[in-house]
Amino acid sequence: MELVLDGDVVRGDSDARERFYDSRGYGRVEAGGLVLAPVEAAHLLSRGDVDVVRDARSGDALDFRALVSSAAVSEIDVLVYKDLRDRGFYLSPAREGWVDDPVGADFVVYPRGQGPWDDAVAYRIRAISERTAVSAATLGDGVLAVVDEESAITYLETSHPEIGGSTTTDLPSDVAADLLGDRVLVWEPPDALYQQGFYGQPLDDETGEPLQLSLVEAAALAHQGVLDVDGGAAAIVECGREVEGERFDRRLAVYRDLRDRGVVPKTGYKFGADFRTYADVESVDSLGHSELLVRVLPANHAFTPRDLALDVRLAHGVRKRMVFALVADADDADGPRIEWLEVGRLTP
Amino acid sequence: MELVLDGDVVRGDSDARERFYDSRGYGRVEAGGLVLAPVEAAHLLSRGDVDVVRDARSGDALDFRALVSSAAVSEIDVLVYKDLRDRGFYLSPAREGWVDDPVGADFVVYPRGQGPWDDAVAYRIRAISERTAVSAATLGDGVLAVVDEESAITYLETSHPEIGGSTTTDLPSDVAADLLGDRVLVWEPPDALYQQGFYGQPLDDETGEPLQLSLVEAAALAHQGVLDVDGGAAAIVECGREVEGERFDRRLAVYRDLRDRGVVPKTGYKFGADFRTYADVESVDSLGHSELLVRVLPANHAFTPRDLALDVRLAHGVRKRMVFALVADADDADGPRIEWLEVGRLTP
Repeated sequence: MELVLDGDVVRGDSDARERFYDSRGYGRVEAGGLVLAPVEAAHLLSRGDVDVVRDARSGDALDFRALVSSAAVSEIDVLVYKDLRDRGFYLSPAREGWVDDPVGADFVVYPRGQGPWDDAVAYRIRAISERTAVSAATLGDGVLAVVDEESAITYLETSHPEIGGSTTTDLPSDVAADLLGDRVLVWEPPDALYQQGFYGQPLDDETGEPLQLSLVEAAALAHQGVLDVDGGAAAIVECGREVEGERFDRRLAVYRDLRDRGVVPKTGYKFGADFRTYADVESVDSLGHSELLVRVLPANHAFTPRDLALDVRLAHGVRKRMVFALVADADDADGPRIEWLEVGRLTP
Repeated sequence: MELVLDGDVVRGDSDARERFYDSRGYGRVEAGGLVLAPVEAAHLLSRGDVDVVRDARSGDALDFRALVSSAAVSEIDVLVYKDLRDRGFYLSPAREGWVDDPVGADFVVYPRGQGPWDDAVAYRIRAISERTAVSAATLGDGVLAVVDEESAITYLETSHPEIGGSTTTDLPSDVAADLLGDRVLVWEPPDALYQQGFYGQPLDDETGEPLQLSLVEAAALAHQGVLDVDGGAAAIVECGREVEGERFDRRLAVYRDLRDRGVVPKTGYKFGADFRTYADVESVDSLGHSELLVRVLPANHAFTPRDLALDVRLAHGVRKRMVFALVADADDADGPRIEWLEVGRLTP
């Protein structure tokens, strides 16, 4: 069978429509015939279902090699299309007029057993090379299919999670504390801080004294009037900024937002993240498993897929969810804007 | 017992020497008396072994809180010193004249059961805050003790590993291949490439054709005359640089060096690394477990401890060794200089 490349579509007759659209969900119907995206035609060529695609302009007969090497189709799309077909899915290129809401997607994948005749959508897929940076702001609604250097494909599901917990603590006020270089020490800590609120870490496990607070913990507490430190919260923030710059403001904004949501953030250092979080802390003696790993990023961050893969794999390995806090205007008087983005592994 | 802070040392009499040096390995002996570093005095104060340290200049009596809050001692050092003592080690501050080769270390730790009277050294320790960036060039000879925001301490062992393997492949020459946007396709691949050499990945597992090569693989092969691509190796390198810039040159330099050493590098994307490596490939049908994860970095890179923790933890979780390839002058005509750095978890 022969098809015709006509601008940015590939056309076939009613026989082609019966064979490829009606029974296997390729392309769309136009005037009784078949219209394919070039990536679909490439797939049919690679399978031997179509012998050749004739270029209407040049008259050239294109085989799989020629079509894939041409500008008509991206090899990334060809690889992802093939992988999803191999997994038993029907899917459509996300073209205007072909699918609802094509913006931001390359393919719309139908549930297994369904096709373009049905209304249901299983996944909206964006196909990228591992070498392409991805703006964080464009994620949160769909699946990223990342083609690595060796053409293996990993799927990452992205969403905007609701973050919340049930932790509440009645905190004392004006507790004396010393700001050292990198932390704050509370020499006579009230129980509410560590025992109930899970703030800080005792230097001496037996006596519980002194209590060491991280700079973000201490800055948040000083803002609330809980701590009495020379220079107040401003001195702690200053100390944080000295090493971390604006990153400290972002981390502090996220820390405070999580606490406001009833979630306890603790350092995520051992997992290479900013925080690990506990949603429901009643007492440090009955801590559960921490649920989230949180990485704090500026809102305009662009991920390299490799870094995403690293975070998601590590989180999965320790049975936590990987969440990114995207912070805009951390130092705005009205408060920062934080957008939450979750990324997880998906096996379609 | 009372000791005296005298400049940058703390002094005690012969009683103090007997009690702290002779029996427990604190400080050094000077004129029959005891000389301590302030960090050692702080530890003795925190334990209640010493009641007070008198500041010779001001006459003030310093307790633990006052000494730790002063400039005489870093709280990072205090935390690491305490942790190692709690683990049952004797250790000495790495001061000139106190230990051999003090440069680059904060503490010298003796094997369990030994002390400053003996010659053996178990670990050379550098103590840092997780917020301190560490120049890669200063690592490779000793242990990094990283104090996280909540004062938990992680030990990272650093070394310069020998990298080598036994893989050899007789490669063909002038094999025709097409450069696409992000990879190179070999339409009629000789067996030696994939089957014996583990170059690339077949698009179709059954037919083995076409063979997809990553840009680094293809550039290395084109340099050797194995591939015949339009524009030669230069065209492939150009394509790599378009997205990655100099990073592509560094990755290519490391790829070629590993192959020269008989080691097969494949993409480390799924582990968030540049490469995973196989030391002894005879055929792709009998591949073992890959041994190393390799991250390629410029020689002047500075690690944040958090990123190091992430890499080391992930590598440990998948039972591989984490190795960094530090590349200077990747585009030098005489070839790049590559320094190998291994970082692993250590439990002292």
